[in-house]
Amino acid sequence: MLQAVTEERIRVRYGETDQMGHAYYGSYLLWFEQARGAWCRDRGFTYRGLEEMGYRLPVVEAHVRYKGQVRYDDLIVVRIRLTEVRRSALRFDYEVVLPEEGRLVTEGYTVHLLVDESLRPVSVPEPLRELLFRDPNECERLA
Amino acid sequence: MLQAVTEERIRVRYGETDQMGHAYYGSYLLWFEQARGAWCRDRGFTYRGLEEMGYRLPVVEAHVRYKGQVRYDDLIVVRIRLTEVRRSALRFDYEVVLPEEGRLVTEGYTVHLLVDESLRPVSVPEPLRELLFRDPNECERLA
Amino acid sequence: MLQAVTEERIRVRYGETDQMGHAYYGSYLLWFEQARGAWCRDRGFTYRGLEEMGYRLPVVEAHVRYKGQVRYDDLIVVRIRLTEVRRSALRFDYEVVLPEEGRLVTEGYTVHLLVDESLRPVSVPEPLRELLFRDPNECERLA
Amino acid sequence: MLQAVTEERIRVRYGETDQMGHAYYGSYLLWFEQARGAWCRDRGFTYRGLEEMGYRLPVVEAHVRYKGQVRYDDLIVVRIRLTEVRRSALRFDYEVVLPEEGRLVTEGYTVHLLVDESLRPVSVPEPLRELLFRDPNECERLA
Repeated sequence: MLQAVTEERIRVRYGETDQMGHAYYGSYLLWFEQARGAWCRDRGFTYRGLEEMGYRLPVVEAHVRYKGQVRYDDLIVVRIRLTEVRRSALRFDYEVVLPEEGRLVTEGYTVHLLVDESLRPVSVPEPLRELLFRDPNECERLA
Repeated sequence: MLQAVTEERIRVRYGETDQMGHAYYGSYLLWFEQARGAWCRDRGFTYRGLEEMGYRLPVVEAHVRYKGQVRYDDLIVVRIRLTEVRRSALRFDYEVVLPEEGRLVTEGYTVHLLVDESLRPVSVPEPLRELLFRDPNECERLA
Repeated sequence: MLQAVTEERIRVRYGETDQMGHAYYGSYLLWFEQARGAWCRDRGFTYRGLEEMGYRLPVVEAHVRYKGQVRYDDLIVVRIRLTEVRRSALRFDYEVVLPEEGRLVTEGYTVHLLVDESLRPVSVPEPLRELLFRDPNECERLA
Repeated sequence: MLQAVTEERIRVRYGETDQMGHAYYGSYLLWFEQARGAWCRDRGFTYRGLEEMGYRLPVVEAHVRYKGQVRYDDLIVVRIRLTEVRRSALRFDYEVVLPEEGRLVTEGYTVHLLVDESLRPVSVPEPLRELLFRDPNECERLA
């Protein structure tokens, strides 16, 4: 069930481009983050809610492979999957697609550590594990 | 004594430009913020130190007038002055100058409220007022 | 007919916050920009299309009044109106609203100059003026 | 001679933090970019100059490993080295260090493709190769 994909549609902002005429390489990390938020909502909870429960998920590793260009006003789709759950770490994989052309333009992943409010690693507790493994088709996507 | 100016030199980043080929209009607010940090250091304290003392200075108003263009790799100088101190509000004025051409490219100001950790406005206390009115020529600029 | 408002819903990103715990003051300019893009789409054209026609609309003035806080994951609504059309300048006014609480948290405006590809000001030509004054209720909103 | 390191000192901006209280994971890519600019200057040329000669160096891969936290107002040092030059690709490696504590907080690399103005890959020409392999100790660092 790790393979259930969430898709997040994002319209590229002008401020996310640079003078080379397409999206700046740092902008993708903001899009990945937005996709993670959507991934949670798709499973009926929010990352804000996790923080209110005392958890944080700081990024410990990020990787992006830029295969094509993304331009201002493009409507991109970020496809995100949870691909690994270890004792206190999670990994998400991403694909950025231009849906109109059906073209994959970017791939990437991020690894996160589950920590408490003092930023100390904690094991993924059972209730949280249950949230992570939810089937999005069987729960209400948060608005 | 409000007129003592602090100058902060900033090299424009690629990620701060957009596809029009010059700096994105939002980038200036980051530069103004960096100049505020330098303004504090010039008077022997840091904004981080203010926060550690329990204060915050959220922005309640910002204004920018873009008169010329700033490009990638330009070395700009932000000239900042404290121009108003009211009961619990401060105003800073900014000029962005291209020093090589001696050209003023941007003007702006920000107004800040002094608040405590619960974000409630407080009157500028005397010790802080003393810091704000320091003559930078008479104190050690922090590295 | 200048008063027809476009509303753009935006979910606040984590990267748009700062350590004070709410949205950084520069993030609003990105949201205003996104709202301008939506304003165009609402009238059946795109800002990208304007650029392809040889026009640019650089910002010459920006003003923001921060009246309340916006936090991570908040769903904000940016309400944007065209409030002035001069020979070669446009002004947009913005309100940021938290719809769930019905609370106005930010107000602002931007002034833009219409320029050609060499960034020289041009008078708003009649076909463009026609686009700007379109009634969004009478045209197809672009997807 | 690939090992000659350039160091770039950067003061962390408030807008580069997020509500977790330290630097947002996307901010590092801006710092890496600033370090690349300094790397060029250290060898007597600028990336802007390369663009004026008709070249671009878009990023095709980026990787960051976050090992420690960086906070607002920290003075970080980005240590950058050119570690690979292939036919039309370059790789830079980065270390982010907190010099006061002598602590390595981040590691990363970026891979770049050398392209012409139409963004088509080109082989690294001999004059550019000469620039890349310059010994920074034997040339004037650009201001």
